[in-house]
Amino acid sequence: MLIAAQGEERRWKEAMTARLPDATIYTQDETYDPAEIDFAMLWKQPQGMMKSLANVRGIFSLGAGVEHVLSAPTLPKNVPIVRLEDAGMAQQMVEYHMYAALHFMRDFDHYMRSQNEGDWHPRDVAEIGDFRVGVMGLGALGAAVASRLSELGFTVSGWSRRMKAMEGVTTFAGAETLDEFLGQTDILICLLPRTGQTEGLLDTARLSKLPGNAAIINASRGALIVEEDLLRLLDTGHLRGAFLDVAVNEPLPSSHPFWNHPKIRLTPHIAAATRIGPAVDQIAENIARIDKGETPLGLVDRDIGY
Amino acid sequence: MLIAAQGEERRWKEAMTARLPDATIYTQDETYDPAEIDFAMLWKQPQGMMKSLANVRGIFSLGAGVEHVLSAPTLPKNVPIVRLEDAGMAQQMVEYHMYAALHFMRDFDHYMRSQNEGDWHPRDVAEIGDFRVGVMGLGALGAAVASRLSELGFTVSGWSRRMKAMEGVTTFAGAETLDEFLGQTDILICLLPRTGQTEGLLDTARLSKLPGNAAIINASRGALIVEEDLLRLLDTGHLRGAFLDVAVNEPLPSSHPFWNHPKIRLTPHIAAATRIGPAVDQIAENIARIDKGETPLGLVDRDIGY
Repeated sequence: MLIAAQGEERRWKEAMTARLPDATIYTQDETYDPAEIDFAMLWKQPQGMMKSLANVRGIFSLGAGVEHVLSAPTLPKNVPIVRLEDAGMAQQMVEYHMYAALHFMRDFDHYMRSQNEGDWHPRDVAEIGDFRVGVMGLGALGAAVASRLSELGFTVSGWSRRMKAMEGVTTFAGAETLDEFLGQTDILICLLPRTGQTEGLLDTARLSKLPGNAAIINASRGALIVEEDLLRLLDTGHLRGAFLDVAVNEPLPSSHPFWNHPKIRLTPHIAAATRIGPAVDQIAENIARIDKGETPLGLVDRDIGY
Repeated sequence: MLIAAQGEERRWKEAMTARLPDATIYTQDETYDPAEIDFAMLWKQPQGMMKSLANVRGIFSLGAGVEHVLSAPTLPKNVPIVRLEDAGMAQQMVEYHMYAALHFMRDFDHYMRSQNEGDWHPRDVAEIGDFRVGVMGLGALGAAVASRLSELGFTVSGWSRRMKAMEGVTTFAGAETLDEFLGQTDILICLLPRTGQTEGLLDTARLSKLPGNAAIINASRGALIVEEDLLRLLDTGHLRGAFLDVAVNEPLPSSHPFWNHPKIRLTPHIAAATRIGPAVDQIAENIARIDKGETPLGLVDRDIGY
C-alpha cells in the first residue's frame, strides 16, 4: 500500500499500520517497487505518480473530494476510485454551517459592524422558521447539514442531481428546478462536489435568482462560484453577505478583494478536516470489500465526477 | 388590568384584548382608577406606580427577569409576582449560545483576526467533545441551552442554587461547588437571574478559577460580572475572549472599553426577546390560576429574588 498525503504521511501510516498490522505500507518518500502497490491512499499526489502503479486495485482519496485524483492524466482505467464519506467531516460541517447560518439569521453580521461603529441599537429578533435555508448537494455532508439546521428550526430545502427524500427538508432535483430552488432560498449553502457540471455554476445569472438580501455560504470548493460575479452582487446590494471557507486560489492571494470586503467573512479552508481514525476504518473496510469482489462504499462514478 | 411596557403598550394591549376579550385593559398613559386594577403587566414601570394599586391581585413581569419589579420601593406586600418562563425566549437563547459557543470552539474569533491581517493559516479543527461548556443557572433558559449544546456534542455541565438532574449534563449545586464547577469549564455561560446573591458574582477571584484560555458568554444581566475584573483577565491573557449581550449600563456608554476590545464581541441586548403571543397565553393562564386560588407558574420567591 502507498500513501501520498502532502506531508501528513507519517500520521496516516501510523494509523493504517495499527488498523492493518499485516499490510506493507510505504509513504511516497520511501523506496518501493511500484508494481508491488495494490492500494493507494492519496491527497494531492505528485503528478505522474499514478502512471507507475501498474497493479493497483483501489485508489482512496483522503478527503470527500476526488477532483485531485480524477484530474490526473495518468489515472489507470478500470480501477475503483473511492472517496471518504463523512469520516468525521459531517459533524464539523454541521458546526460550521450552524454558525454561519446563525451569523445571518440572528444579525450577527450587522452587529459586528455596529460594534465597530459604537452603535447600540437592538433590532427585532427574527423568527428562525421565517429563514429559508437552501442546501445544494445532499451527499453525506449536505444531508447532515440540512437535517440539523431543520432540527434547529430553519425552514430547509435541498437541491441535488437526483431526487432524494429527506424528513423535514423539501427537496428539488435536476437543472430544471434550480431557479425555483434558488428563488425560495434566503441562505444558500453550497456542498456540491467540484465536477465539470458544477464549476462556475454560481454566476451572475444563478445568484440573481436568489431573493434580495440573500446570503451565501461556501465551504465546498471555490470554483463553484464565479468570484467576480459574487463580488458584483454583494456590491450592488442584491446579496447581504457571504461566508466563505474556500476560494478559487488557495491560499488566497494577499491582493484578493475577499480579504477586506465588509460583507465577507473568510476562513482558511477549515470547515471540515478528515479525521484519521474514522477515515482509516472506512478505507480498511473498503479494502476488504474489494478483496471479496464487492463494491466499495463511496465508489466514484468517473463520468459524473464524484 | 394595567399595562406599563416602555412604549410597547399598544402591541401588548392588542394581544391581551384578543386573548381575554371580556377584560378591561388600560395602558399606563390612559385614564384609569387605580383601585379598579386587579392585575398589572409591567416592564420597567414608572417609579411610584405600584403604590397606587391598592387592589392588585397579581403582578406579571413581561420578561424573564423581575429585578425591575422587586426593586420598586412601593411594591405591595403579599401580592404574587410572576415572571415569564420561556415564552419564546428559550429557542432564541439556544440560537445565541450555539453561535457564541461555536465562535470560540471553532476558532472563529481567531479567524476574524486572521482575516483582518490577510493571514491564511488553517489550524487543526478541535473536537467538540473536548470543549467543556459550563452553564450557570438551570432555569427554563439555562436548561434549554445546556441540553441543546450537549446534543450538538459539547461536554456540558451546569451549576445552580439547588441540585437539578439533567440528561447529558453534569450538574453542580450551591456555593461550595462553584470553584470546582468553574475549574472544569472552558466556555462559561451565565444565565443566572440578577439577585443580591448573583450581583458581582463573577469577579477576579471567581473568573481566575476558570482554566487558562477559557471564554465567557453573558446574555443575562451585566451586573453579574465585575466589568473591570473581566477586562483585566482578558488583558493578562488568562481569558481567551468574551461574548457579551449585556452590560452594567445599557445602552453601553460610547467611551466604554468593551466597544473596541479585540477579545470582546458585543451585541445590544438582543439574545432573547419576549414573544408577545406565548407571553400573553402564559399570563392569561396564570390569571385563571390566581382566580381559582391556585399557584401561578413562574411565581417569584421574593426572598430569593427570582
